[in-house]
Amino acid sequence: MPHLVILYTSNLEADTNMTVLCRSLADTMLTVEDEAGKQVFPTGGVRVLAYPAAHYAIADGGEAGRAAGGSGDYGFIYLNLRMGRGRSDAVKQQAGQALQKTAMDHLQPLLELKPVGVTFQIDEGPEVFDSKNSSLHPLFKKDR
Amino acid sequence: MPHLVILYTSNLEADTNMTVLCRSLADTMLTVEDEAGKQVFPTGGVRVLAYPAAHYAIADGGEAGRAAGGSGDYGFIYLNLRMGRGRSDAVKQQAGQALQKTAMDHLQPLLELKPVGVTFQIDEGPEVFDSKNSSLHPLFKKDR
Amino acid sequence: MPHLVILYTSNLEADTNMTVLCRSLADTMLTVEDEAGKQVFPTGGVRVLAYPAAHYAIADGGEAGRAAGGSGDYGFIYLNLRMGRGRSDAVKQQAGQALQKTAMDHLQPLLELKPVGVTFQIDEGPEVFDSKNSSLHPLFKKDR
Repeated sequence: MPHLVILYTSNLEADTNMTVLCRSLADTMLTVEDEAGKQVFPTGGVRVLAYPAAHYAIADGGEAGRAAGGSGDYGFIYLNLRMGRGRSDAVKQQAGQALQKTAMDHLQPLLELKPVGVTFQIDEGPEVFDSKNSSLHPLFKKDR
Repeated sequence: MPHLVILYTSNLEADTNMTVLCRSLADTMLTVEDEAGKQVFPTGGVRVLAYPAAHYAIADGGEAGRAAGGSGDYGFIYLNLRMGRGRSDAVKQQAGQALQKTAMDHLQPLLELKPVGVTFQIDEGPEVFDSKNSSLHPLFKKDR
Repeated sequence: MPHLVILYTSNLEADTNMTVLCRSLADTMLTVEDEAGKQVFPTGGVRVLAYPAAHYAIADGGEAGRAAGGSGDYGFIYLNLRMGRGRSDAVKQQAGQALQKTAMDHLQPLLELKPVGVTFQIDEGPEVFDSKNSSLHPLFKKDR
């Protein structure tokens, strides 16, 4: 935790560089600070994973897009950050605004290329059991 | 929002047409109306994504299926709709029943072909941050 | 339900056998018993699905790993079990501990090979609609 998972329609694979988007979002996560100026997301805990869907269907299937003179090829990107409980609402909003800006800076050209919907949501973990094991965190000694 | 994500074992890929299932479910979502006869899921917000799992394990691994004279090849399909908060319980149940019917109309032949478990669940979004950007929604002017 | 979904960085695909991990976790799920000695997860309901991410970014992107003399190639594995509501906290903790042990028995060599973070969380289903259809469960007559 935290981790950000991106689900998207595979027709966008050639239109935007998802590896670059993952890295940009991870970099943004590393910059979020709380009210006391402390890094919110520990470096070793920042993870972004992106998954193109093998199959999908969107909206009306393309009819309105074709009627508007386009190809009817729609896209969808869903970004979902799951973070630990206990952060202030201000931190959640700040993280959300920063990540949304990073995502849209990257995705704006794509939205101009074709009809694409982007939804970004943050969930607070509702977990009833939580365990972590890591050979990664020791590389970042200042991590909480 | 809303979006419906389908996770399934990849051994079902050749047995059923998941792209057709995605489209059928999207079409069903478009037909759901609330108590006032208003479309519940805005057209531009309807998205169905399906993901075959690269690796999986189910139940006893096939022993009971082979003992019953079958191949022991089991399948699993999980359908999960995440919808926005604030709908009435009646709307949730109506959407659930309609989508379940569409799913099973499509999947019944598969369940007769081999032992397959299908679970369909609707979650209400617990998000603490929510943003949307879209070049798709403008195609559907009546969308809320 | 229950099902366990594993999301992981695709750079781990050659380093560990995820199909074996799925099976080991499913076997462990089958052994979990409640206070009365009754099997917690019905056999036909045990499913483990694993998904390598097509794109990803982790932590600082490898800088600290390279500074420490390694390749900077980090990995991440997220295991998430969603189980039905209504279990006792003791059962949740017992299931969590058992599954965590199975996961780490399998993954420890991987964590020694490269910097890898492993997070395992159990969620209780917050579903507002739930339906099940199965041609698998009838194979396990004792299933609840």
